[in-house]
Amino acid sequence: MKFATAIYKDDLFIGVIKEESIINLTALARLSQKTFPETLLKGIEQAEHFIKVVEDLLNTHGTSDFTYPIDEVELLAPIPRPSKNVFCIGKNYRDHAIEMGSEADIPEDIMVFSKAPTAVIGHDTGIPSHDKLTNQLDYEGELALIIGKKGIHISKEDAFDHIFGYTIINDITARDLQQRHKQFLIGKSLDGTCPMGPWIVHHSEVPNPEKLSIQTKVNGEVRQNGKTSDFIFDIPTMIAELSKGMTLEAGDIIATGTPAGVGKGMKPPVFLKRGDTIEISIEGIGTLRNEIVE
Amino acid sequence: MKFATAIYKDDLFIGVIKEESIINLTALARLSQKTFPETLLKGIEQAEHFIKVVEDLLNTHGTSDFTYPIDEVELLAPIPRPSKNVFCIGKNYRDHAIEMGSEADIPEDIMVFSKAPTAVIGHDTGIPSHDKLTNQLDYEGELALIIGKKGIHISKEDAFDHIFGYTIINDITARDLQQRHKQFLIGKSLDGTCPMGPWIVHHSEVPNPEKLSIQTKVNGEVRQNGKTSDFIFDIPTMIAELSKGMTLEAGDIIATGTPAGVGKGMKPPVFLKRGDTIEISIEGIGTLRNEIVE
Repeated sequence: MKFATAIYKDDLFIGVIKEESIINLTALARLSQKTFPETLLKGIEQAEHFIKVVEDLLNTHGTSDFTYPIDEVELLAPIPRPSKNVFCIGKNYRDHAIEMGSEADIPEDIMVFSKAPTAVIGHDTGIPSHDKLTNQLDYEGELALIIGKKGIHISKEDAFDHIFGYTIINDITARDLQQRHKQFLIGKSLDGTCPMGPWIVHHSEVPNPEKLSIQTKVNGEVRQNGKTSDFIFDIPTMIAELSKGMTLEAGDIIATGTPAGVGKGMKPPVFLKRGDTIEISIEGIGTLRNEIVE
Repeated sequence: MKFATAIYKDDLFIGVIKEESIINLTALARLSQKTFPETLLKGIEQAEHFIKVVEDLLNTHGTSDFTYPIDEVELLAPIPRPSKNVFCIGKNYRDHAIEMGSEADIPEDIMVFSKAPTAVIGHDTGIPSHDKLTNQLDYEGELALIIGKKGIHISKEDAFDHIFGYTIINDITARDLQQRHKQFLIGKSLDGTCPMGPWIVHHSEVPNPEKLSIQTKVNGEVRQNGKTSDFIFDIPTMIAELSKGMTLEAGDIIATGTPAGVGKGMKPPVFLKRGDTIEISIEGIGTLRNEIVE
């Protein structure tokens, strides 16, 4: 199942995507007088119980009046307000590490920074250009993991048991601020610089998350064309390393790093400007599209 | 006023400190059948309204049955669960920057990293030694700002209007992990490595936050002896820089950096071990004490 958070006629709801439509689960639950989580984050915290409730709702109602064409709803980020910063793995593709500097930039140990939750926006929402603060705004298409089960000291063997599903993140970065402030938080946390979505695909529908193609286009031109099989630190390693001494919680989001092809890596570098549209497509997940505005 | 989050006989409450006692505001509000925030974080979000409600409660009831000796309650962190990572300013005292490396480490631009909210613990709570992960656990005594009013692009002139109050943070750091993983998040976010408290002092009682002495003792021995007048980036600059393009929200926490005297800076370096007690005292705020356990 693909889970989304969306708005239809001013009504915020949790939905599942079915082909070109979205089914309003919140409305179905109301109809059945069933308890249903207020947010998708709370649903994820309920783990298998949530999946069962959703399956029951869909079995009872099938498609119904509460199914809308997807282009008639506003998709928010599936988790519009994460309960902590988004974890991001830095330089997790060899060719990207090299394009950002040299072979010496290929990390020997996992590098983790974060993006403030205030940066999160949804599919088709405008990314502010922040052009008074930066003239080096850049994209980074990334597969993101959504943690589904709390844990600490998670072994590599158990890592996949802790994943609820997968989504796409555009780790928009102000390269000048990233460099100037050394630690990445400032250059990575401007408002609207964490587009996420369009939905979360449940892990049961992503049998091979480390064999996915990932492509980023700017104004239709292919810029990044990678595959998750090129991760330097694979998914079990990311989860094991992050959870060494630090509790991971349901709803935590881990952006897994970006492949080569960012604007800063072009010769000469090309950065984003107002009116540019960035589309990130990941096999089996979907396409996240956002335009630079203001 | 000094605001605390505490537990008395299994009952979680918001309290104000009065000399050696704590007044249970949550109980007073229940007695008066008044609406009262569930958490101090929600109180801070209510800004002046919250202060007025508290003043009314104290005026109506004075001291009462709901006043306990402070050593009979368990003090949690005043904000036990922040709604995003704690912002930390790196190398914000000249002498500390030098002890961590050399003059070249004095930052020209503000450096910001974060600690995961799962790291937060309260006064007198044990800090796990994490001795299977690190043998370089170190303390950093810091003044922390609690944001009281949402804002973006906050000017230096307006910065103090956005502060609710002040507390103490011990920015416990695994130096080996901090260095190995380059970006600081991993070395700064182990569970229990963000002791905070013992309470938040309202800004009205801290007229000169940039003229406070700050002292850290380990097992009674003075290690850090600084003053906030030595900030490289002063409080208005921290708030202005952080809010450039990033919305600051009520309840956000900014740890303002640590003065010279950390264990890594000693010759030879001395790190924390089980049984060590760290006490951080800031003039006009209080003393935050924690022991390394397990």
